[in-house]
Amino acid sequence: MKILITSGGTTEAIDRVRGITNHSTGQLGKTVAETFLENHHHVTLITTKTALKPNPHHHLTLIIIETVSDLLKVMKEEIPKHDAIIHSMAVSDYTPVYMTDISELEKHSPEQLISKTNSENKISSSSDYQVLFLKKTPKIISLIKKWNPSIFLIGFKLLVEVSEQELLDVAKSSLRQNKADIIVANDLSQIKDNQHHAYIVDADGQEKVNSKKAIAQKLYERITQHA
Amino acid sequence: MKILITSGGTTEAIDRVRGITNHSTGQLGKTVAETFLENHHHVTLITTKTALKPNPHHHLTLIIIETVSDLLKVMKEEIPKHDAIIHSMAVSDYTPVYMTDISELEKHSPEQLISKTNSENKISSSSDYQVLFLKKTPKIISLIKKWNPSIFLIGFKLLVEVSEQELLDVAKSSLRQNKADIIVANDLSQIKDNQHHAYIVDADGQEKVNSKKAIAQKLYERITQHA
Repeated sequence: MKILITSGGTTEAIDRVRGITNHSTGQLGKTVAETFLENHHHVTLITTKTALKPNPHHHLTLIIIETVSDLLKVMKEEIPKHDAIIHSMAVSDYTPVYMTDISELEKHSPEQLISKTNSENKISSSSDYQVLFLKKTPKIISLIKKWNPSIFLIGFKLLVEVSEQELLDVAKSSLRQNKADIIVANDLSQIKDNQHHAYIVDADGQEKVNSKKAIAQKLYERITQHA
Repeated sequence: MKILITSGGTTEAIDRVRGITNHSTGQLGKTVAETFLENHHHVTLITTKTALKPNPHHHLTLIIIETVSDLLKVMKEEIPKHDAIIHSMAVSDYTPVYMTDISELEKHSPEQLISKTNSENKISSSSDYQVLFLKKTPKIISLIKKWNPSIFLIGFKLLVEVSEQELLDVAKSSLRQNKADIIVANDLSQIKDNQHHAYIVDADGQEKVNSKKAIAQKLYERITQHA
């Protein structure tokens, strides 16, 4: 099978020296990729410069991206060519549009400010406070089944310090909204070096696993059983 | 001699999953550290998790930090123990204080908003625009000579697509304001893989160099000649 995996976190530029980054080591995507490669599948891994990566392998194609806009472009091309997608990348939900001194808030309306852009390559200021306007990015996961209705779609939901019930409710809602086959639901506070508690949630219910290796193995089984 | 080097770029958290990062590979700091180690000096390198680092060496001490606040704490301890500091780290000049929906701008004054903080571990929103308030960070370079008046201080100034005159003027002003012995002035647009144009600026004038190795060699000569 041809498996598409995304890992790491996107970065959205504020200017040419600064950006907003979603933290993600890429370790889970690497583990999932290795599991499929060991079992003789073809893997395309869309990831970032700093993310952890599997060793080179003749069945592995690496695509390095940085921004949500890069990801959107690459996914649109790759989704139709693959049988399953494991979308574990931490994707920025907002991207910077304009940064300015806080004093500008008194001179212009919010509507005026969000239509401005910075012309500087490095935004500099001596004021004590600045304000950064951000715009929602496209929800890529919601587009995947439109690009390829028959792809097996595994999405991820990461929350921080919520109840088990809230985590599962949010995962189920994402399952429906994005027409995903599985959502892997996890809580950052439950992820440590050798431990990764997660729920594998599908329309029938959920299954709990406790490590990155177990998540990878479970996703491997679900995808190959489905095929 | 005991040489303190900073490299990489700091990251300031927006919440537990996102942060603002100043981009810097750490390659220059690594090259400078290697030059001093090869010449039997002791090096303390303050850097970040993702920055490039020299190989382990019995005269090399690594200190890994993430935020401006980490850096401030470590520098205050280390500056008095060293003979020279090469401060090449890209330090965040602003840190997030509060992120909210743009609609809050109509309900509260900017003064009220900058005194708020987010209680969420992961700030979530469904609105099209958000606004992030940021506060100036302490200028660490300006504190170095207060902590150790006899340390040889080398600072850096990175601008983007400015004229040579502007770059030199800004460097000279930083030299005076921070009581630095040398400012290395460089323009991001003049830095490529194998090329790194920079001016070594001191009270007597400036000298132009064209690679990371040449910058490291020149800083090595200046520091050892001064001692």
